[in-house]
Amino acid sequence: MDVGCALCNDQGDLVVWREDLCRVIMVDEPGYPGFCRVILNRHAAEMTDLSVAERDRIMHVVFAVEGVLRETLNPDKINLASLGNMVPHVHWHVIPRWLTDRHFPNPIWAAPRHAESMVKVSPDMLESLKQRLSQLAP
Amino acid sequence: MDVGCALCNDQGDLVVWREDLCRVIMVDEPGYPGFCRVILNRHAAEMTDLSVAERDRIMHVVFAVEGVLRETLNPDKINLASLGNMVPHVHWHVIPRWLTDRHFPNPIWAAPRHAESMVKVSPDMLESLKQRLSQLAP
Repeated sequence: MDVGCALCNDQGDLVVWREDLCRVIMVDEPGYPGFCRVILNRHAAEMTDLSVAERDRIMHVVFAVEGVLRETLNPDKINLASLGNMVPHVHWHVIPRWLTDRHFPNPIWAAPRHAESMVKVSPDMLESLKQRLSQLAP
Repeated sequence: MDVGCALCNDQGDLVVWREDLCRVIMVDEPGYPGFCRVILNRHAAEMTDLSVAERDRIMHVVFAVEGVLRETLNPDKINLASLGNMVPHVHWHVIPRWLTDRHFPNPIWAAPRHAESMVKVSPDMLESLKQRLSQLAP
């Protein structure tokens, strides 16, 4: 554990699933409903700092989240990214994308192309997503 | 194969390694020496469109590339991303990042923070990277 690391502890995140290796959170990002992160519980900066078994496991969790997102929200695309330039602690962004979101087809980190998101995801759909994620079986 | 897809064929890319499932290319991106992509050979949009064995295999290739990049170029961080909003054909960006690159700590798709890259990677280092990638054993 790195005491200065923002991801070594939960920061009031909505943790929807957890095991020894990693946890899944739902991110409150305006215009990006269903945005999830898979966060390694211990402190390591790069995927190749993990054992092969750990890498496989965390990717299986990422792909399980991707599968649930596709089934519950039916987005136009899924974006996966492990960056960690600001917080060098392994975490995967799992981002549902829509043709009607603010940045599409650009990455969400680029300048927005539209002032407003036209993405329509109901509270019921998000609740269904949360329930499905809580029962993740990667 | 999707005849309209830019990644269903090599586009004059520098392919440094290839197997049935996927290939590895070195990307000519100014200011980002060592930028690689791992590209699925057949046409599929999402990782969860692949079999579990195929997902595992392509990730092992991605992590093998990450390992070679770390050993040969010693970057400050590695960024991994599968986006595919423009070209919905599975491809992984494997991007060495440096504190002195144009965008750090932002993603490379954000607005640059510096007009010029101060990254120092010699032609000999890139040749060494190419040689090591050609012998990849994921």
